[in-house]
Amino acid sequence: MPVPLTKETDVDVLIIGAGPAGLMCGNALAKAGVNVRIVDQRPKRVAAGQADGIQPRTIEVFQSYGLAERLLREGNQMHMAAFYNPSPNGGIERTGRAPDVNASTARYPFEITLHQGAIEAIFLDSMRSMDVEVERPIVPTSLELSQDEAELKDPNAHPVKVVLKYLDPIEAGTETEIVHAKFVVGADGAHSWVRKTLGIAMEGEQTDFIWGVLDFVPETDFPDIRNRCAIHSNNGSCMIIPREGDTVRLYIQLTGTDAVDAATGRIDKSRLGPEKLLEVARKSFHPYTFATPKEVEWWTIYLIGQRVASKFSVSNRVFIAGDACHTHSPKAGQGMNASMNDTHNLAWKLSHVLRGWADLSLLDTASGFLYCRYEFERRKYAQDLINFDKKFSALFSGKPRTEENQEGVSHEEFIQAFRTFGMFTSGIGVHYGPSMLTNATHKKVASNLNIGQRMPSHIFVRPADARPIELQDVLPADTRFKLVVFAGAVTEPAQKARVEALADTLGAKGGLLSKDVVDIVTVCSGTVESVVLGSLPAVFRPHFTKVFVDDMDMHRRSGGGGYAAYGIDTQAGAIVVVRPDGFVGMVAPFEHVGDVESYFSAFRS
Amino acid sequence: MPVPLTKETDVDVLIIGAGPAGLMCGNALAKAGVNVRIVDQRPKRVAAGQADGIQPRTIEVFQSYGLAERLLREGNQMHMAAFYNPSPNGGIERTGRAPDVNASTARYPFEITLHQGAIEAIFLDSMRSMDVEVERPIVPTSLELSQDEAELKDPNAHPVKVVLKYLDPIEAGTETEIVHAKFVVGADGAHSWVRKTLGIAMEGEQTDFIWGVLDFVPETDFPDIRNRCAIHSNNGSCMIIPREGDTVRLYIQLTGTDAVDAATGRIDKSRLGPEKLLEVARKSFHPYTFATPKEVEWWTIYLIGQRVASKFSVSNRVFIAGDACHTHSPKAGQGMNASMNDTHNLAWKLSHVLRGWADLSLLDTASGFLYCRYEFERRKYAQDLINFDKKFSALFSGKPRTEENQEGVSHEEFIQAFRTFGMFTSGIGVHYGPSMLTNATHKKVASNLNIGQRMPSHIFVRPADARPIELQDVLPADTRFKLVVFAGAVTEPAQKARVEALADTLGAKGGLLSKDVVDIVTVCSGTVESVVLGSLPAVFRPHFTKVFVDDMDMHRRSGGGGYAAYGIDTQAGAIVVVRPDGFVGMVAPFEHVGDVESYFSAFRS
Repeated sequence: MPVPLTKETDVDVLIIGAGPAGLMCGNALAKAGVNVRIVDQRPKRVAAGQADGIQPRTIEVFQSYGLAERLLREGNQMHMAAFYNPSPNGGIERTGRAPDVNASTARYPFEITLHQGAIEAIFLDSMRSMDVEVERPIVPTSLELSQDEAELKDPNAHPVKVVLKYLDPIEAGTETEIVHAKFVVGADGAHSWVRKTLGIAMEGEQTDFIWGVLDFVPETDFPDIRNRCAIHSNNGSCMIIPREGDTVRLYIQLTGTDAVDAATGRIDKSRLGPEKLLEVARKSFHPYTFATPKEVEWWTIYLIGQRVASKFSVSNRVFIAGDACHTHSPKAGQGMNASMNDTHNLAWKLSHVLRGWADLSLLDTASGFLYCRYEFERRKYAQDLINFDKKFSALFSGKPRTEENQEGVSHEEFIQAFRTFGMFTSGIGVHYGPSMLTNATHKKVASNLNIGQRMPSHIFVRPADARPIELQDVLPADTRFKLVVFAGAVTEPAQKARVEALADTLGAKGGLLSKDVVDIVTVCSGTVESVVLGSLPAVFRPHFTKVFVDDMDMHRRSGGGGYAAYGIDTQAGAIVVVRPDGFVGMVAPFEHVGDVESYFSAFRS
Repeated sequence: MPVPLTKETDVDVLIIGAGPAGLMCGNALAKAGVNVRIVDQRPKRVAAGQADGIQPRTIEVFQSYGLAERLLREGNQMHMAAFYNPSPNGGIERTGRAPDVNASTARYPFEITLHQGAIEAIFLDSMRSMDVEVERPIVPTSLELSQDEAELKDPNAHPVKVVLKYLDPIEAGTETEIVHAKFVVGADGAHSWVRKTLGIAMEGEQTDFIWGVLDFVPETDFPDIRNRCAIHSNNGSCMIIPREGDTVRLYIQLTGTDAVDAATGRIDKSRLGPEKLLEVARKSFHPYTFATPKEVEWWTIYLIGQRVASKFSVSNRVFIAGDACHTHSPKAGQGMNASMNDTHNLAWKLSHVLRGWADLSLLDTASGFLYCRYEFERRKYAQDLINFDKKFSALFSGKPRTEENQEGVSHEEFIQAFRTFGMFTSGIGVHYGPSMLTNATHKKVASNLNIGQRMPSHIFVRPADARPIELQDVLPADTRFKLVVFAGAVTEPAQKARVEALADTLGAKGGLLSKDVVDIVTVCSGTVESVVLGSLPAVFRPHFTKVFVDDMDMHRRSGGGGYAAYGIDTQAGAIVVVRPDGFVGMVAPFEHVGDVESYFSAFRS
């Protein structure tokens, strides 16, 4: 018998759980140069099934970390949704089609489906290139938070003590490890050990909607098999989510009693198998047929729970994210997206505190500024998500309206909901409420931008070399705020003088542009021909790749109309503050540059 | 002293030289599953400098091998060209700007610049993923071709004997190796050992234009430093080629006597250094200034030679490609492109012969069908290239027209030439003459397609899932011919009947679609809404990813108008044969499908 070994270590951030939320967090922190470790109880990443839908907004987030290319290459794209309802002749018929994504500013106007393991691999490879590996199989066995107020308020202290147990001790040479962490992120799933250890309750209900999920390569005459489909039949509802390669996922509505153990009220997977699920589906799809597949890649059955954790963090030191703090129906493809965007929101704030760019209060949940922090922004979103999910699930699980059942859900009602919720389900419409981080005081100066929503992309052209560039690509998730100076009509003397005055203020010693926390991007109105890079104030052109003009490219294939799209005056311009997570923090006219300075000083130490 | 070791091996194709021509060849053959080896005398790939310009057509070729993504990510893009001429006030002034690329059908309407080592790395990594590595440092010391006619005509024989010498024998464990090859490709540069060993002469002249090249990060007030520039000054000509990162390449015209050793007539690099080159450039750029750079990344001096090898192959068994068979001025960025496209043209033909899909005569240079083969297509191109180069170099090296010098080259003359040659310099206009591989008999049926030019891309939409796709992406360089069936108005009964008749012919036992050499892509006119995948004949829809409709995507951002762009009737359709290298081989109306069958039978064994 080997002698049990214990080691004791320090770390800035310990992430527990290497699913989508944990990996987004680990990758973002590694990219920010944060001292981070990530542990997981599974010996390997998931191989098949699980969550698989990536929203348009999440694709933008991947792109902001330089990871979208592979996602786009490997994933399936859903461009079209189709709706089926009971046919007067029996069975179902198509009652309509629509774009899958209803968000006009989406840079990627489609959803991607790709199995969770492939998505995790994108993060794992990215982290590996930065020498961060997931340590596994490891489980935490205790978590203690210091009760010393001074320690909790010292950003350099390590007030969280976590004991880790190595499940594969021989290989690791250690059986347990005591980790002292500045911060801990619990991204350990719906049955979160971190959440339970912290005694955080889940609020909300279990529904009685039960669904089966089946991943397989179908042989069928169903014409929309490669589109997202909502099937309302008199024999239950189904949903199709086409996947990478030839795989398709079916969501199949089940009647309560089939899959539930009456004694416990819990799902009993042994009561149903994939054959039975397919049999149920076939009834909904009549008159279309499905051959019995040779192989089922993955399947499961679940009871929809719609619950949110009562809080997302304790003492600004331990956070929960992802399924650990919200569970809901998977059918609108929200789950994994919500999870990854939780930690996308959290990671830059942790980085700022660890670098001394911000007070611990940026993470605060207890102060009067509750509403500007991680918990506020993401818990509000999670509640919106549950509310959406309740409406959508009810519509989806409800009986269709037919001549006999006038109380049922009509096609019009459903498609109306599909469109209404489009901005939400795409992730594009996610909105963080007014706070010190989202200040809408001067919103009129960029009337088409929504403060607290993500900055939409647009193609501008570089005057230096006429290259068209997506604006989002110069707003990467590199932990810095971006000051996007829409400099207006810089070729006109009066505006040139205003721009120079603004440059003097921002570029002064101690001014915003002298601080690491801010990066600058300049966008002029006018044409490539008229805007001369060298005539701009030096602080507005730190490099030729940072200056743009709202013009078309040399072949007039892209670009132009950006000021109009954002609702900014082409003459006078505006200042736009984009947060490190890509959200619009505030906008201001040049004259109110003082308010922009106040925005930054409010949360900076 | 180790005992000299010799081994003896067989290989299907031996490539000598791992520059751009050799690597394109090696990668293409590896991808085709051919038994290939590639050797090079250099111990490592080049680190800096050398050739660096990638034309729009070459980007398309990279994309056809799945390699464009990295090229686009790592390279600089040239979108704009600027022209400078003597100013009446002394010095130079800008006289115009234009798109860098003048080829309206270019899928990538710009050129990429990236140093040769980075381009080579793209191939090396791709080949490594297929377990093919460049073996180096190795030089060939003898090459013998069998004189036995029967052996030369047997595609399975190994009639070429090459002795290789390992320059690093201790590591390799071998000093020499005798390789018996079915085919040898000499891609060993301007001083090609293979060419000299075969006794092939270079035809053409050395010019007396001498140019210097300087790669460095400039500090300058010159406003077009990130654009391709042609500078005609009274103090000589210069050209700017912006490169990746902040690097810029200057081409600097030198007066003959500065750099030439009078005794030998050869360039003597010791007579000039980078400081001297910059000094010459500064005179041309006046009144703009260049600070002395801290570091020069790479520099050279060359005398322009404009020569073509008298033949490109011997006995269909040994080929030369790239700089080994054509040398010319580098200023129009043609060299590396010409080299890579030589072997892009050759590789699929070698694969076809080795698979038994074609007779050795596909490679023939001696038969009456000379004009359809590798040498014909690429030697004709090389001659066109030299003719272009002569005109362009003369214009470029000539004195500018001024009040005093009315004989000089005017701005209008130069820019006219720049535009005229645009299709050529972009690579888009490269045209292979009429032959069995490029049959223009029925060209009217696709009146905007040029038989013998590359198939232009266009965005079509898949009826199965409404995903927009670039047509070129379903015409990959996978060694198969593509039969693109423009099926026309398939929803109309008369056309449906024609399509079904065509399917019967093509899909019949022994018909074209039963052969491995042909892959099929179907493009219908009409809309995503109206075209039902399942109503097409089965042979025209082998997979949902192979069928398209000429419609816009769900958000009306792309697609539509493809039939019109190609000049194909939306009612009646047409058959388009695309060669494995992406060139249009022939077009035909449905009624002349027999001619399409003849096209294939002509070169097939």
